Amino acid sequence: MQRYFLPVDFGRDKKFALDDATYHHFVQVLRAQIGQAAEFVTPTQQLFLAQLSSLDLEHHRAIMTIERQLEQTVELPIHVRLVCGLPKGDKADFITQKATELGASEIVFVKTTWSIADWRNKVAKKRQRLQTIALNAAQQAHRLMVPEVHYLDQLSQIDELPTDIGLVAWEESAKAGEQTHLAQVLTTIAEEQTLTVVFGPEGGLTPDEVTALQAVNYHPVGLGPRILRTETAPLYLLSAVSFATEMMAH
Amino acid sequence: MQRYFLPVDFGRDKKFALDDATYHHFVQVLRAQIGQAAEFVTPTQQLFLAQLSSLDLEHHRAIMTIERQLEQTVELPIHVRLVCGLPKGDKADFITQKATELGASEIVFVKTTWSIADWRNKVAKKRQRLQTIALNAAQQAHRLMVPEVHYLDQLSQIDELPTDIGLVAWEESAKAGEQTHLAQVLTTIAEEQTLTVVFGPEGGLTPDEVTALQAVNYHPVGLGPRILRTETAPLYLLSAVSFATEMMAH
Repeated sequence: MQRYFLPVDFGRDKKFALDDATYHHFVQVLRAQIGQAAEFVTPTQQLFLAQLSSLDLEHHRAIMTIERQLEQTVELPIHVRLVCGLPKGDKADFITQKATELGASEIVFVKTTWSIADWRNKVAKKRQRLQTIALNAAQQAHRLMVPEVHYLDQLSQIDELPTDIGLVAWEESAKAGEQTHLAQVLTTIAEEQTLTVVFGPEGGLTPDEVTALQAVNYHPVGLGPRILRTETAPLYLLSAVSFATEMMAH
Repeated sequence: MQRYFLPVDFGRDKKFALDDATYHHFVQVLRAQIGQAAEFVTPTQQLFLAQLSSLDLEHHRAIMTIERQLEQTVELPIHVRLVCGLPKGDKADFITQKATELGASEIVFVKTTWSIADWRNKVAKKRQRLQTIALNAAQQAHRLMVPEVHYLDQLSQIDELPTDIGLVAWEESAKAGEQTHLAQVLTTIAEEQTLTVVFGPEGGLTPDEVTALQAVNYHPVGLGPRILRTETAPLYLLSAVSFATEMMAH
């Protein structure tokens, strides 16, 4: 079943018109006919089944009628915010798509000392592009929310992000055999808490950056004994969160 | 420190010449000078530190001298074999690179009913390309082995692959709320055992294929409540294996 996010809630008459992007996909790409159903997520993360009840191809207007509400638990029990050192090339696209599939709540890109990429003068355009990637990935993964994508100029601004637990993925922790803290955190974190995890860009974080993060309560953790690339480490983290909080908790 | 795989073991004099690909990277790309060190993994998965002791730029000949053996535990405690329905485009490249980083022992691509890709007449070339990707990823991830990449014409041939435990990632299991079997397997599997996990291509496996796999002791498992793309599911599995067997076991 196709799933779409509604930009605004539907009215009391349980009917709504499709927005342009959804009209294009549902009617023009999938060639939906009267009676065809799809799932729609409201801005308050509720899921509804709706049928195409009226279609005006000439004026690009399609009316959907709500059939019933659906119950689903597809979001991680905790909120995971990734803070990623600005990576090179299209890796930000990749991280955004895959992290959305794997359940991230928020994805923050940040310029760090050893970031080679530079988003100066194009932050708004980059964010808009990544937000669209997140929307599409959330629809494909059948999620109930679209992660927000943000940008920070400086890593020190991380202090302004409210979080319950802060971690920083740090290769030196992995080399030193630090492999227990992540498991401790993930097996004891309470539902609905926010976990923020910082990842370096290709060249890693500087020791000074790690020290500064520790000073604001970000604890260094290893992600296993192998060296993971900057775009792979966040996926490891999110998979481990899912395994610990969704698979083991039963 | 740069890491390379030695195609053959070094001799009793503890000296060896670099092969062409390693010469190119170490001497021409990294511009190594006499005395510069790198790590080398022997075919028997032992790790040594060696120094460049002689360099003949004209004849492209570099001799390394072993300094000492290094101890490292970087391989997963169990062997993980991925069996992936042939995916589209460059997704086989992606799966091979990322699965190598995350610790896979073997990656098998297989033509399934709903595979759109077709490797007929180009299996040898594809395998060679993927084996090179695996080698480079294993060096970058600082592993002690390079996963072997294989190809099967038919999913039924999976019966010939020896394994201790067989699983099949199955979206319908996830939808039905099946979220405990994977955790049971990963928290009880013994060291050095082999776990084989089958993943469908973009369109998934057919119900008949899942039934046939069950008949040869492949147990369906969900990988959490979100729908993962064909190239993301193996990364989730490997991350969960690492978390359960390397991070929680301490």
